[in-house]
Amino acid sequence: MSAPKKVVLAYSGGLDTSIILKWLQTEYHCEVVTFTADLGQGEELDPARKKAELLGIKPENIFIEDIREEFVRDFVFPMFRANALYEGLYLLGTSIARPLISKRLIEIAEQTGADAVAHGATGKGNDQVRFELSAYALNPEIKVIAPWREWDLSSRTKLLEFAEQHQIPIAKDKRGEAPFSVDANLLHTSSEGKVLEDPAQDAPDYVLQRITRPEDAPDTPEIVEITFEKGDAVAINGEAMSPATILTKLNELGGKHGIGILDLVENRFVGMKSRGVYETPGGTILLEAHRGIEQITLDSGAGHLKDSIMPRYAELIYNGFWYSPEREMLQALIDKSQEHVTGTVRLKLYKGSARTIARWSDHSLYSEAHVTFEEDAGAYDQKDAQGFIQLNALRLKLLAARNRRFK
Amino acid sequence: MSAPKKVVLAYSGGLDTSIILKWLQTEYHCEVVTFTADLGQGEELDPARKKAELLGIKPENIFIEDIREEFVRDFVFPMFRANALYEGLYLLGTSIARPLISKRLIEIAEQTGADAVAHGATGKGNDQVRFELSAYALNPEIKVIAPWREWDLSSRTKLLEFAEQHQIPIAKDKRGEAPFSVDANLLHTSSEGKVLEDPAQDAPDYVLQRITRPEDAPDTPEIVEITFEKGDAVAINGEAMSPATILTKLNELGGKHGIGILDLVENRFVGMKSRGVYETPGGTILLEAHRGIEQITLDSGAGHLKDSIMPRYAELIYNGFWYSPEREMLQALIDKSQEHVTGTVRLKLYKGSARTIARWSDHSLYSEAHVTFEEDAGAYDQKDAQGFIQLNALRLKLLAARNRRFK
Amino acid sequence: MSAPKKVVLAYSGGLDTSIILKWLQTEYHCEVVTFTADLGQGEELDPARKKAELLGIKPENIFIEDIREEFVRDFVFPMFRANALYEGLYLLGTSIARPLISKRLIEIAEQTGADAVAHGATGKGNDQVRFELSAYALNPEIKVIAPWREWDLSSRTKLLEFAEQHQIPIAKDKRGEAPFSVDANLLHTSSEGKVLEDPAQDAPDYVLQRITRPEDAPDTPEIVEITFEKGDAVAINGEAMSPATILTKLNELGGKHGIGILDLVENRFVGMKSRGVYETPGGTILLEAHRGIEQITLDSGAGHLKDSIMPRYAELIYNGFWYSPEREMLQALIDKSQEHVTGTVRLKLYKGSARTIARWSDHSLYSEAHVTFEEDAGAYDQKDAQGFIQLNALRLKLLAARNRRFK
Amino acid sequence: MSAPKKVVLAYSGGLDTSIILKWLQTEYHCEVVTFTADLGQGEELDPARKKAELLGIKPENIFIEDIREEFVRDFVFPMFRANALYEGLYLLGTSIARPLISKRLIEIAEQTGADAVAHGATGKGNDQVRFELSAYALNPEIKVIAPWREWDLSSRTKLLEFAEQHQIPIAKDKRGEAPFSVDANLLHTSSEGKVLEDPAQDAPDYVLQRITRPEDAPDTPEIVEITFEKGDAVAINGEAMSPATILTKLNELGGKHGIGILDLVENRFVGMKSRGVYETPGGTILLEAHRGIEQITLDSGAGHLKDSIMPRYAELIYNGFWYSPEREMLQALIDKSQEHVTGTVRLKLYKGSARTIARWSDHSLYSEAHVTFEEDAGAYDQKDAQGFIQLNALRLKLLAARNRRFK
Repeated sequence: MSAPKKVVLAYSGGLDTSIILKWLQTEYHCEVVTFTADLGQGEELDPARKKAELLGIKPENIFIEDIREEFVRDFVFPMFRANALYEGLYLLGTSIARPLISKRLIEIAEQTGADAVAHGATGKGNDQVRFELSAYALNPEIKVIAPWREWDLSSRTKLLEFAEQHQIPIAKDKRGEAPFSVDANLLHTSSEGKVLEDPAQDAPDYVLQRITRPEDAPDTPEIVEITFEKGDAVAINGEAMSPATILTKLNELGGKHGIGILDLVENRFVGMKSRGVYETPGGTILLEAHRGIEQITLDSGAGHLKDSIMPRYAELIYNGFWYSPEREMLQALIDKSQEHVTGTVRLKLYKGSARTIARWSDHSLYSEAHVTFEEDAGAYDQKDAQGFIQLNALRLKLLAARNRRFK
Repeated sequence: MSAPKKVVLAYSGGLDTSIILKWLQTEYHCEVVTFTADLGQGEELDPARKKAELLGIKPENIFIEDIREEFVRDFVFPMFRANALYEGLYLLGTSIARPLISKRLIEIAEQTGADAVAHGATGKGNDQVRFELSAYALNPEIKVIAPWREWDLSSRTKLLEFAEQHQIPIAKDKRGEAPFSVDANLLHTSSEGKVLEDPAQDAPDYVLQRITRPEDAPDTPEIVEITFEKGDAVAINGEAMSPATILTKLNELGGKHGIGILDLVENRFVGMKSRGVYETPGGTILLEAHRGIEQITLDSGAGHLKDSIMPRYAELIYNGFWYSPEREMLQALIDKSQEHVTGTVRLKLYKGSARTIARWSDHSLYSEAHVTFEEDAGAYDQKDAQGFIQLNALRLKLLAARNRRFK
Repeated sequence: MSAPKKVVLAYSGGLDTSIILKWLQTEYHCEVVTFTADLGQGEELDPARKKAELLGIKPENIFIEDIREEFVRDFVFPMFRANALYEGLYLLGTSIARPLISKRLIEIAEQTGADAVAHGATGKGNDQVRFELSAYALNPEIKVIAPWREWDLSSRTKLLEFAEQHQIPIAKDKRGEAPFSVDANLLHTSSEGKVLEDPAQDAPDYVLQRITRPEDAPDTPEIVEITFEKGDAVAINGEAMSPATILTKLNELGGKHGIGILDLVENRFVGMKSRGVYETPGGTILLEAHRGIEQITLDSGAGHLKDSIMPRYAELIYNGFWYSPEREMLQALIDKSQEHVTGTVRLKLYKGSARTIARWSDHSLYSEAHVTFEEDAGAYDQKDAQGFIQLNALRLKLLAARNRRFK
Repeated sequence: MSAPKKVVLAYSGGLDTSIILKWLQTEYHCEVVTFTADLGQGEELDPARKKAELLGIKPENIFIEDIREEFVRDFVFPMFRANALYEGLYLLGTSIARPLISKRLIEIAEQTGADAVAHGATGKGNDQVRFELSAYALNPEIKVIAPWREWDLSSRTKLLEFAEQHQIPIAKDKRGEAPFSVDANLLHTSSEGKVLEDPAQDAPDYVLQRITRPEDAPDTPEIVEITFEKGDAVAINGEAMSPATILTKLNELGGKHGIGILDLVENRFVGMKSRGVYETPGGTILLEAHRGIEQITLDSGAGHLKDSIMPRYAELIYNGFWYSPEREMLQALIDKSQEHVTGTVRLKLYKGSARTIARWSDHSLYSEAHVTFEEDAGAYDQKDAQGFIQLNALRLKLLAARNRRFK
């Protein structure tokens, strides 16, 4: 790879990406463009601008954007249409944010004439893969710089030395090492490393960033109604809201009621297992509600097909293949299923759990006439079951007769 | 089908199967053998014997058995090795009991020289299918009688008239109609019908049979540790127990802490949707714990393969295909994966939820040396990630270059 | 089911459906509408009109249509985009025609005010299922009459008696029984029954209806080039043609060169195995060619996903679920993959086989620069393979280290 | 990686691996052990011993073995039980040989105290991945040396210079460059590179190594009968043979009749497409025959499940994951299905194609009584089909009624 001339850096404004910024300038003598996004991580963006300026970035090279609506509308919601869970439990909160950041990095690179992008993910994790696969899928010519895989600033001490040497301001609380590492966006907060590294040890309560401990949540359940249109949430308690507003509101509800805490050991794409504590308050409610509305609006053929491809879909997102033909093909399949996933679900939120307790829809496939215990109104002829069972049994009978001959 | 001469009836001792017993005697003039099983449904079996005798069944034709250990060991546990969930949520508590009952019916038929078996499931539900597919798979010559699909006792009034006419004792509380229908065994209790038929209406609290409402559960969390060997639970809090004892103990814990309530609209095999309230206290804890121990003992290749076939496996059990070659093939695959699923999981039980908070095992694949945020001890070379990403990206780059030519 | 008043009958003009026509008139005293389609079965349609008139059908109730283009464009081609093979070998020639016939039956029923449709398929086969599932999926209120399951004309003798009794003309060659049963359309001819019923016996050569025996095919291979656009064949040897014309032309080529004979024992949806001889001359060439063009235009992620869902897609079509949400969802996935499946394939046809020997496309993903044995031009860095392998191996190493501890 | 002290080299005796041998000695100053296997590639092994001695390998460090029986019995046959085809067409002839070679390399390393293994695969292909994943899965501590990724002998000229410089004898026909590259074993011969690199160009006839051109094959078809037991071929024309003998015999038959030529563009695991010509004469016959016997002995549930997992199974083998838990899990599933795959298939071999024309078995599930066109003997009640269709249609009707409301 020839040396980059102009690099768009995914810049948080924090210490680590500030060091990367300076390292890019000194190592590659290249122009740096910073991109700072509000994905709902709950941090002010203004300081990032000031810090970038302080580090010598030209104003026209500083990009700061609120992309929360795009994030929820074009990434989170499509994923939730699939009821995606990685390894049965994980709502993919980190994974789903990376492709959007890469997309903006590439767009800004094309807009500013940059030939490279850079990110602050380490060489051990999944995020490097997600950033880079997305970048290459969107621009096969782009160069990607991953300083953590290249430099020798591999200890906290060396990092701080480099920062001091280059006049990068260090917040007091960053001098010591954090007891664990955090990533956050509107969908979730993940914590991992350090005090969490031994999966045999309980995670300390102070790890929780945005969800109240269930034990400290309100003693009274709260009822919430979520309305869907074509598979996407569009209203809460009857009030229409934008995608990001809905997720924000659900986060408040879930956070308050202790909902969405997950302590997980998962398999990284790069081959090792890692342990994380994930907080996905709104997403956990949203998954439960989406399943609830699908229960009455989705046919079994459609639902079972979705269930069967879901693990692969989730794995693709986890592994960083959002911009792959197979993810897009699966999305086409999923989206096709959601045409009638319209209606409302009532849930009960209480001390750590969100449970569907009722659901209704003009698009419902539920037929009380067919299922009723009351005397039949003629909708269903029980005698049909006889033939249904006989023909389903036929091959089993032939098998049994055959197998008997060989016992 | 020629008329049956001797029928083995799945007999609960309740009003409905007593009517069936008498109906078989009067309709087919055949000898009836009764089979009453303790599957952990929580009812005394002695009254069933007395009632059968009262209805004229010869003592040698009355079979009463405690099959709880066989149920958990050979049916529940193998199913839980798969983390089986039907339609994402249902733990298959009713489905998994049917094949065992059919197996005993067929064995008793062969032992007593009966040429038919009979069950009390209706023509609208899944249970008729499960009973009969199992029966035919085990004995292709057997006749199966499903009175609900045949007779004209299709209203409560007619049933009661028939009972009175044939001196079948009717408990006082059975004169009126129950507000919903219940099925129970050691794994779960299901309620459906009547007051539950409208899925837009919340289920009334009185539906719950064995789980305390979360709101009424203890205010203090309880910690429990479950130990697994080769995928099956073998001990609770360090105390070794038999399969049925473990499930019984977990039921107590789950029931006490409000764990395992599910309000679901599901797709029946016979084509319509139905709504049920399921209580699976111990099973819900067991699933969470099994996932917890797999997190550290199962490799990603094995785990992802299991995840991908799970929906089909669950569907097979739901639809009644326990004794099918494809279920057995999937079981072989699943069992093969469990050789090292040995270790202990710590869970926190609190007001409706069971969460894994720690897990450990001599068979663990988790490697702190690989994942650590600390400086590397050489276990993992971050530079390898470069090549890994480049080759994973190669096809995406080729795609991007191709697709660009057509924009 | 209440008695039908007006029935649209799938009418071939042959003896069997003429008997059905008359039976409907006499049994149900209902008005009959006939629908006769040219699906490429190679029979004149005019006689069907005359025969219908003779049997008393009003001219406005006789529908005769050439639907070959719709058949190939909307049914055959979409299916071939999937490379669909049932049970690894069968090109679904009969299965794919049924949904279209049902669609027209339902449309004509709505147009003529008929409340029922009827078909001539027996109660043992798949076609009854395909006709009826399609009909119900398109009109849930329609009545379907399947005379073969209802009447008592269950022997050849009774059928002929009924025909004579009702002045239905019987062609001389229909007096005796055919040595096997044939179904044909533009995609294939199937033969089954009678002389073919013992799968241990070779099918006699006279079974072949449209394909030359390979031994009798030309001694000189023929080269053909097929061009695709977005997954569908659009030209042969550079000459653009309509869908039905292309399939007709490929049938000629395949028939001449002995290509597309299949002797198969398959599993019917209704539970038993059956043996058939299938002739699919053009389809066999088309599948080979479509695979050939996908080889260079489809990415591995897309291709492998398609391969993995293909068996289910084929099974859905075989079982009669063309008009099901899951087939439509899979179709959306498949169609999404075909956007760049554009280019040309060269095949060699010779004495029973069609083999791709070359393929090219502006949309090709094949990169000689990457694959070449020549010295690298820098497109690919072999050292990347090191990291790729290391990270793919990581979990296997961790597994091996773990498993060693337990040996 | 620290320097290796003793290396086991997969040694063919040819020029390339001789250069590698010498390069290992000069570059790493390590002791070299050679392993030369007879996998049926059709080359004498004696010259390899002499050449190894000439290059200074101690006699006790030269391992020469005939592993054909193990190859067919433990690798080829298990794979054929799955009807494995990569990307719909490829019989995995190269892929399946690699794990066995790696297994022996690792065993010899443990026996001779070697700390490394080496192979002659390049950095662009799949074989490096297969060799190395297998090696690491069998010994997580082993070092693997892949000279082609390390050295700078990257042109033909440099290689020959190195050979001359180190007195490595060069056969005259190796001075010039071969027009394509060949790999062979008992299952197949693959050719790729050079004259084959442009997939738009027909492969020249001289590429074929072991199969007669169909045009030159005998004008008379040949009939062959293959007998299977539990999924594996055990006899040809009634004569019992060992696994390797059977494959050898089938190779003769296929080669003679022009059977098993495949011209393919496939997707390599390392991300690019490549074009190869594969000759798999016996394997092509074996696949057809195995399908033939499964047609009558395998139930549809078992068969369809096998079909659905086959693509993943084939991909695992292609990608080098033979020794992975997921391949072993799938193998357990597949092997479970083969218990009754016992019987005989008759095939017709003629000018490029092998077609099943008859099959029979004591284990057959085919029931003439059920399928017959003759009047029923009572095995099957056509009226059952009514109920079967009604219940399969129920959800489609409910869907149609729902969807109509929104048109």
